Amino acid sequence: MSLLEQIKTSGDIKKLSRKELPLLAAQIRNRIIDVVSKNGGHLASSLGAVELTLAIHYVFDLPKDTLIWDVGHQAYAHKLLTGRNQQFDTLRQYKGISGFTKMKESDYDGFTVGHSSTSISAGLGICYAKDLNQDDSDVISVIGDGSMTAGLAYEGLNQAGDLKRKLIVILNDNDMSISANVGALSSYLSRTLSAKYLQSMRNQFGAFLKSLPKIGEDMYGIAKRWEESFKTFVTPGMLFEAFNFDYFGPIDGHNLDHLIDILTNIKNPDSPVLLHVTTTKGKGYAPAEKNPVYFHGVGSFAVDTGKSNKVTDCVPSYTQVFGTHMVRFAKTNKTIVAVTAAMPEGTGLTEFSKLYKDRFIDVGIAEQHAVTFSAGLASKGLKPVVAIYSTFLQRAYDQILHDVCIDAHPVVFAIDRGGIVGEDGPTHHGLFDFSFLRSMPNMTIMSPMDENELARMLLTAINHNGPIALRYPRGKGQGVEIQQEIKPVEIGKGRVVQEGADLMIIAIGQSVAEAVLAAKELALKGICATLINARFVKPLDTALLVEKADRIKKIITVEEHVLAGGFGSAVMEMYADKGITGLQFKRIGIDDKFVEHGPQEILKKDYGVDADAIVKAGLELAGFDLDLNLTGSNLLGFKTDGIKKDA
Amino acid sequence: MSLLEQIKTSGDIKKLSRKELPLLAAQIRNRIIDVVSKNGGHLASSLGAVELTLAIHYVFDLPKDTLIWDVGHQAYAHKLLTGRNQQFDTLRQYKGISGFTKMKESDYDGFTVGHSSTSISAGLGICYAKDLNQDDSDVISVIGDGSMTAGLAYEGLNQAGDLKRKLIVILNDNDMSISANVGALSSYLSRTLSAKYLQSMRNQFGAFLKSLPKIGEDMYGIAKRWEESFKTFVTPGMLFEAFNFDYFGPIDGHNLDHLIDILTNIKNPDSPVLLHVTTTKGKGYAPAEKNPVYFHGVGSFAVDTGKSNKVTDCVPSYTQVFGTHMVRFAKTNKTIVAVTAAMPEGTGLTEFSKLYKDRFIDVGIAEQHAVTFSAGLASKGLKPVVAIYSTFLQRAYDQILHDVCIDAHPVVFAIDRGGIVGEDGPTHHGLFDFSFLRSMPNMTIMSPMDENELARMLLTAINHNGPIALRYPRGKGQGVEIQQEIKPVEIGKGRVVQEGADLMIIAIGQSVAEAVLAAKELALKGICATLINARFVKPLDTALLVEKADRIKKIITVEEHVLAGGFGSAVMEMYADKGITGLQFKRIGIDDKFVEHGPQEILKKDYGVDADAIVKAGLELAGFDLDLNLTGSNLLGFKTDGIKKDA
Repeated sequence: MSLLEQIKTSGDIKKLSRKELPLLAAQIRNRIIDVVSKNGGHLASSLGAVELTLAIHYVFDLPKDTLIWDVGHQAYAHKLLTGRNQQFDTLRQYKGISGFTKMKESDYDGFTVGHSSTSISAGLGICYAKDLNQDDSDVISVIGDGSMTAGLAYEGLNQAGDLKRKLIVILNDNDMSISANVGALSSYLSRTLSAKYLQSMRNQFGAFLKSLPKIGEDMYGIAKRWEESFKTFVTPGMLFEAFNFDYFGPIDGHNLDHLIDILTNIKNPDSPVLLHVTTTKGKGYAPAEKNPVYFHGVGSFAVDTGKSNKVTDCVPSYTQVFGTHMVRFAKTNKTIVAVTAAMPEGTGLTEFSKLYKDRFIDVGIAEQHAVTFSAGLASKGLKPVVAIYSTFLQRAYDQILHDVCIDAHPVVFAIDRGGIVGEDGPTHHGLFDFSFLRSMPNMTIMSPMDENELARMLLTAINHNGPIALRYPRGKGQGVEIQQEIKPVEIGKGRVVQEGADLMIIAIGQSVAEAVLAAKELALKGICATLINARFVKPLDTALLVEKADRIKKIITVEEHVLAGGFGSAVMEMYADKGITGLQFKRIGIDDKFVEHGPQEILKKDYGVDADAIVKAGLELAGFDLDLNLTGSNLLGFKTDGIKKDA
Repeated sequence: MSLLEQIKTSGDIKKLSRKELPLLAAQIRNRIIDVVSKNGGHLASSLGAVELTLAIHYVFDLPKDTLIWDVGHQAYAHKLLTGRNQQFDTLRQYKGISGFTKMKESDYDGFTVGHSSTSISAGLGICYAKDLNQDDSDVISVIGDGSMTAGLAYEGLNQAGDLKRKLIVILNDNDMSISANVGALSSYLSRTLSAKYLQSMRNQFGAFLKSLPKIGEDMYGIAKRWEESFKTFVTPGMLFEAFNFDYFGPIDGHNLDHLIDILTNIKNPDSPVLLHVTTTKGKGYAPAEKNPVYFHGVGSFAVDTGKSNKVTDCVPSYTQVFGTHMVRFAKTNKTIVAVTAAMPEGTGLTEFSKLYKDRFIDVGIAEQHAVTFSAGLASKGLKPVVAIYSTFLQRAYDQILHDVCIDAHPVVFAIDRGGIVGEDGPTHHGLFDFSFLRSMPNMTIMSPMDENELARMLLTAINHNGPIALRYPRGKGQGVEIQQEIKPVEIGKGRVVQEGADLMIIAIGQSVAEAVLAAKELALKGICATLINARFVKPLDTALLVEKADRIKKIITVEEHVLAGGFGSAVMEMYADKGITGLQFKRIGIDDKFVEHGPQEILKKDYGVDADAIVKAGLELAGFDLDLNLTGSNLLGFKTDGIKKDA
């Protein structure tokens, strides 16, 4: 049995000698590489955190002590050490274990995470609660330098230093978040780190000061009084000590002995402690060390070469189509500026960033700032296109409403990963954007049915003089040909995909494709549906929808989005406001629950937002009239209501 | 003509000699005190910023240079200097000038503000745009130390230091945001400031180092290389220089000569500059200097004494009732913890904070952290009650969804200022909370019709094992007697206020009182309404609402909230999901636009969410049947639809 197989719970690691730990680390790395090469996942950061994970489990008493991994995607080793080695083959798979830490999955997961920068705040809350409960155990929050960019981390640091609880923050510094890290803080950290010899100077200098005779002012006295400042004046500690943290480090995050020693020393502190650890992303797997951005979140690959197993696909992803057209439009429109929050690759902006350096801004993990910053850009005549995943845009709710919408600044929101994203699960699905955006006055919301429409909508957005959002899904497009001459779509106009008298299906975004399939299936059963590609969640094509509802009273709305307050809800509101009654409504969308992780197609079926769900709704709506329908389908729509407006 | 009256635009101030400025400052203070004593407003911070405002207008070329006041409530002097002296009597009044800066109000207002901590991000965006436009003019963001607590400010600082644009940030430090400032940053600023003599030490120490002979290592060399660190190692500059800002100060923010000199020096910088200015809140008006918290945002008062003109009111505000019952419930329930974001007074928690010091946490202006921190508290068995104004809770959208709702942590959200807040205007109305909260799985949402129900709902919330929100309005209650024995309300149950067969009014929160008035008025016209106090936005009392709709097909929903995705929308969704058709709906709520400032009662009428609006809707719904109604009102509900389910 390998060492790894002997570890059933965290406590088992303490039975090993220090000398055995490097072997365990190697076994863990192999296991991670093996599974991720098949299932895909967050490889580079998990490999970088192996020794740190071992040291924490070796020194602390988990789960009595609480361990929180910020973001959680670096916690694969943690999972392997906490009874999840056997299940690890199911990583990120449907009904398998999550790619992030999750309280419901294990008592060893101190907090459920996914979005970055929550660990200090949550850890501080847990610290505070333990204190009130007179529980003396430790709380350890491990946070990457990329996550430090976000305001939430700063708010947590600021209060931690104020409350002076015994929180242990471990800064896992690999000079990189998902892409290359940005921001002054990052350059500050690396500036001081790269000058490692200066750290030894620091000590020598301290000794030197103590050796000084009195000269005029008592310099030694000052030195003593400002010992902290001296101690740290050439290290990042200067910054963290400003927040009342006791600062330790930086130390090599792959040196197990050092890690164990220092963790033992700082265990059970009296006040907040920050341990600065430097690690290498992808450590121990050459391809990942070489290309940590690619191996941050990766699909399946060949272990020996690191090459992707993905078969080349001629159909581009929505993300790629967005990126291509950003480049294209920016060529002639010099006001276009692209803004991303630490996701230049993820949002398809790599090419743009190379071609238009001056007009590309990566703000780091700082969605709030990205939006308010863009409002500033827009207020001076630029056309910012803020490309952020739907789930992360949630961080900027107030900035969209308060800083963009009140003054109707023409900011374009390119919302990638709208809908079910798949393996990343409940923390990452983009299922709330229609709802939260459509309540905001002055906001326009579109969603394309295919790549071509995406390009057209992007142009529409760029031409629009007000806040406008464009929401598209993760993954590949429909494979349609993209027109050479891109024409904008007309704002607030939907498109009739097909006519049919029995019922009306009104779909938005990627759900239009599902609706097309469903309409074909329904037709086979003799039910003729009018199918409308709504294109706009706001403003709706009221004229079209009202006109159609004049004749067709059975309506199905379809969206890959929560039902509460979503697209279907908007359609119902509109009909009610227009005084149109007697409609029978089925809204297809996500029920009032969080969507778990798994492949997009399976989840769509499970949560009832695929073509089958539409067919079922259609049959139900038409159900009791199916017999009649077979002889005269065009009567169906007028049968149940008893009121025929034009009769 | 006074000096103030001679200033028509910002440029006019440059015609004055420096010697005349103190007189102008005095005139400005008098004008501010005079108007605010009548209209109410943000007095203390505006008085504290008079000299700073004068100096900025004296030195910079506004509005070519862009000036952004963070939050904007300290900008009264700025308004007086930019052509708004005459209108200043209408400050915060209906159709008068805004209490905040607003781009639509004046070209001199560089950005529309209201929520804190946006100025650095917006200013940086404007800087960036000017750069691309080859516009060399300056951008000045003035931000208070309280606003520095928010993550957004940090995100802005971090990127500003990275982009190295010529942004000028002026830190207006009065060691106080709205209440006493909190957080490590604050104590850090004051710690270093109070030790002023150490700043001179800094210089002496630098000189001393330069005088040293070589001893072993070349200490002077080190000193030179780390000059920046030395220069600032005992000042807050240390922190800001970590972000690549050139740091100046701290200087006395009431010394006009110093201010003008230093602003002239730092004008048109090459890279980001931070000027640290210390001011006194309420400066020049003794009562406000003595009690800056009270005079932060104040109602009308007597100028000579500073005493409020408010007639003592026996009816408590919702805020007070909340505060009283927090104290009451916390006495027996030791798990209750109160969390506020810089609003202990505003949210009614002063008494609580005194009685239960250990269980009261003010996190400063850091709503994101407040929520994630509370999730941490709740994960360890505490019962956090997070009291935040509706408008500011918008900042924590993602934290509510991601950190609280996914794991259904039992956090109580006490949402004060839900609905129209009045004079603070569009940036501060709380009109989006139902909508954004009800999309979140696991969330329960209540809103009380009166003080008694507020107390009962607070108890309900505390007893509930999941995320739950309690939304109540600004201002005084209904004047009902509060029961001595508080019983929780049943979750998901509404209450029938009165029965009537002609139509059904379903109201939530403060709108129930409007509906009661409306129902009386409608009754006088012979229309008998069933009136339901919904109590819950989520879950709705489906059983009750469905049962009533069996007989009553004309439905009015009422909410002080935007219509898009709001309470009425939820009711419609529910009926559609239950397959109930043939209903006629009127939703009363705020249309798709921002609500301006003014007294709550006027705005309610203007935006159609008062009793009159309900009466009108009722008449319209009943309209064509009014004749019939006079003879047999109970038939009305069954008339238009043609389908009577139980017939």
